[in-house]
Amino acid sequence: MSGEMAGKIIKCKAAVAREAGKPLVIEEVEVAPPQKMEVRLKIMFTSLCHTDVYFWEAKGQNLLFPRILGHEAGGIVESVGEGVTELKPGDKVLPIFTGECGDCRHCKSEESNMCDLLRINTDRGVMINDGKTRFSKDGEPIYHFLGTSTFSEYTVVHAGCVAKINPDAPLDKVCVLSCGISTGMGATLNVAKPKKGMSVAIFGLGAVGLAAAEGARIAGASRIIGVDLNANRANEAKKFGVTEFVNPKDHDKPIQEVIVEMTDGGVDRSVECTGNVKAMMSAFECVHDGWGVAVLVGVPSKDDEFKTLPINLLNERTLKGTFFGNYKPRTDIPGVVEKYMNKELEVEKFITHEVGFSEINKAFDLMLKGESLRCIIRMDA
Amino acid sequence: MSGEMAGKIIKCKAAVAREAGKPLVIEEVEVAPPQKMEVRLKIMFTSLCHTDVYFWEAKGQNLLFPRILGHEAGGIVESVGEGVTELKPGDKVLPIFTGECGDCRHCKSEESNMCDLLRINTDRGVMINDGKTRFSKDGEPIYHFLGTSTFSEYTVVHAGCVAKINPDAPLDKVCVLSCGISTGMGATLNVAKPKKGMSVAIFGLGAVGLAAAEGARIAGASRIIGVDLNANRANEAKKFGVTEFVNPKDHDKPIQEVIVEMTDGGVDRSVECTGNVKAMMSAFECVHDGWGVAVLVGVPSKDDEFKTLPINLLNERTLKGTFFGNYKPRTDIPGVVEKYMNKELEVEKFITHEVGFSEINKAFDLMLKGESLRCIIRMDA
Ligand SMILES: NC(=O)c1ccc[n+]([C@@H]2O[C@H](COP(=O)([O-])OP(=O)(O)OC[C@H]3O[C@@H](n4cnc5c(N)ncnc54)[C@H](O)[C@@H]3O)[C@@H](O)[C@H]2O)c1
Ligand SMILES: NC(=O)c1ccc[n+]([C@@H]2O[C@H](COP(=O)([O-])OP(=O)(O)OC[C@H]3O[C@@H](n4cnc5c(N)ncnc54)[C@H](O)[C@@H]3O)[C@@H](O)[C@H]2O)c1
Ligand SMILES: [Zn+2]
Ligand SMILES: [Zn+2]
Ligand SMILES: [Zn+2]
Ligand SMILES: [Zn+2]
Repeated sequence: MSGEMAGKIIKCKAAVAREAGKPLVIEEVEVAPPQKMEVRLKIMFTSLCHTDVYFWEAKGQNLLFPRILGHEAGGIVESVGEGVTELKPGDKVLPIFTGECGDCRHCKSEESNMCDLLRINTDRGVMINDGKTRFSKDGEPIYHFLGTSTFSEYTVVHAGCVAKINPDAPLDKVCVLSCGISTGMGATLNVAKPKKGMSVAIFGLGAVGLAAAEGARIAGASRIIGVDLNANRANEAKKFGVTEFVNPKDHDKPIQEVIVEMTDGGVDRSVECTGNVKAMMSAFECVHDGWGVAVLVGVPSKDDEFKTLPINLLNERTLKGTFFGNYKPRTDIPGVVEKYMNKELEVEKFITHEVGFSEINKAFDLMLKGESLRCIIRMDA
Repeated sequence: MSGEMAGKIIKCKAAVAREAGKPLVIEEVEVAPPQKMEVRLKIMFTSLCHTDVYFWEAKGQNLLFPRILGHEAGGIVESVGEGVTELKPGDKVLPIFTGECGDCRHCKSEESNMCDLLRINTDRGVMINDGKTRFSKDGEPIYHFLGTSTFSEYTVVHAGCVAKINPDAPLDKVCVLSCGISTGMGATLNVAKPKKGMSVAIFGLGAVGLAAAEGARIAGASRIIGVDLNANRANEAKKFGVTEFVNPKDHDKPIQEVIVEMTDGGVDRSVECTGNVKAMMSAFECVHDGWGVAVLVGVPSKDDEFKTLPINLLNERTLKGTFFGNYKPRTDIPGVVEKYMNKELEVEKFITHEVGFSEINKAFDLMLKGESLRCIIRMDA
């Protein structure tokens, strides 16, 4: 990493989304140098998350194309802009879709990770410093995505959205820690906080839910009850510590009643990772009165309302939601990588596929078919 | 306290509710000796709470008459039944409408006070040992209420529903700690847990809400915003540490939006003490994202649903409910009395009226007119 391109435009390959739902096109784009408080990263590995697919399909959303998607990735700092002191060329990093300015009330709060300045913004396609893109092709701007746009050999990211990690960490593995896996694991470890020996129900056994189960396993839960409408998830889930599988389709009564019976009054903790508002209500109502805590992770449709009888709350249940597993990107994610390095957390089992950058559309197919948990995209192939 | 009546029936005066909504009748009743795990108490002072009025009006409920109401009180142990080891004649106590067996999963949990055996049961009019009443008149049974029935010179209570307090505590003051005041104060101190300097909104400024405000004052809250539809509550509330008063009727927009504006993003904590489900939703939505905690105390109508958009939760707000301020009756209430004894907690300001036992119906009038916070009823007058 010589830094010889610092301050200059870099031409490189990127997978550009030009139209909603149409295959990405690998093109040569120009990546401008980082401005004030920005860094330019060389992306080594990226992976695909549902959120990329969602904004690529762009159903019922603002269309913001052409755009470079991608937000789960690992890379190396190529050059840094004015004012960046905590990162330098050569640093091994994970770009994160939400940031940590370090100065706002949220960043100063022990509890929140919802930075006022750098909180996720799915509508913004430009950098906040000048309201412009750093990507272009033949003078035409190409929009950013979640401030990360990792489907490019080089990208520009706000320094507050970059976690500097252990230089020995293998990026082809830990890249998946920059979104879904940390989200699910953090939901359990940071928010539901099961004590050793407690029972935990996980609603939705996609990558996020399986990571929540992994969190429950790490916390020493005695029972981990996985709930999914998809019977195929049962087998896979075992690898993630799920001890019992329940499919709402197999029961006539509401699934919360089934779980309350299985557990003599309810589980101690539940984590909802489906995005389905009915599952959210079930996840809440299946926790034990007196001490049960339910944590919502899934992002539902805009107008779906969460409803419950207040008595369910008055009987001393707690309902919480989390964003990115309550991890502060810069402060906490390096520690999550350490959990992997010291073998507390298993990451390999989430990685079901691997493709070269030129085959990136295959990763989309695999996810759409529900065949992959995480598909790693090697930028050098 | 000689205990000469131990094992014998005591004849004494009680205020009997013979018909829904009709004035109580002071009659001579017979109080049987305490059975296994029961104690017989001489009630010295009792006070009136909304719950008494509610079950006296008995609108849309099972009619369970004749019945002896009353559950906020202070008294002295007269005699104890078989197996009672932790109480003896002469002990100064508060009977509590919900109990603590000490053995069940709730009693063993650090978080819950919802004892499986002795949890509040508003429908039960008999003692659990034999399913019969200890009160009678000319052979006719008179039903119990909340296991306490304190509108009687003597009453029989399960030993698990009796808090033994400091023998120096003045019962004419601390008797109000056996229900509403502890409920509100505990909701703030044990559940909302504001840190010093935090802002707190209190919805509903009845006795429970004012006690929640008192809890916020004790916790060192910087702003205590009182919310009530009744403008008359504004002045009184100042005595309880409320720094600002907001009346939803004075605003066109939802009160949660008003509070979010007043506080630049929302209060740190809110405590709902109205029983109105709309106020519950407002109380939840007025807390700050990232760290805000809302606590529900009020008991709403049976079918009222609590509704909110999941995003309000995903933005890292917490919603909890509490029962009796999460205090364990026997373990914690003696400590609440100590808070009064060492002048941390002010109780006098809740006591607005005092009447003799023979005038007990006056206490009902005062509460129905909304003129009293707490009216003490002296049993000896
Ligand atoms: N809060 C955050 O910070 C954050 C971050 C990443 C992802 N998410 C959200 O987490 C959720 C899960 O993400 P994922 O990538 O694992 O998704 P996924 O689609 O791979 O998995 C969801 C699983 O839920 C199951 N499911 C759907 N409805 C169900 C129901 N009613 N009952 C039981 N199971 C049901 C599906 O069968 C599927 O297996 C999504 O809503 C996503 O938007 C949130
Ligand atoms: N959870 C428990 O353990 C427990 C114990 C005791 C009482 N409670 C409940 O606490 C609640 C309060 O009890 P209280 O004795 O103080 O009652 P109260 O009637 O004296 O006070 C309630 C106050 O709320 C106000 N109010 C009603 N609707 C409102 C709204 N929409 N917005 C703002 N203010 C509103 C009223 O004007 C009144 O001043 C009741 O619902 C009672 O059942 C619960
Ligand atoms: Zn910030
Ligand atoms: Zn993601
Ligand atoms: Zn118990
Ligand atoms: Zn009461």
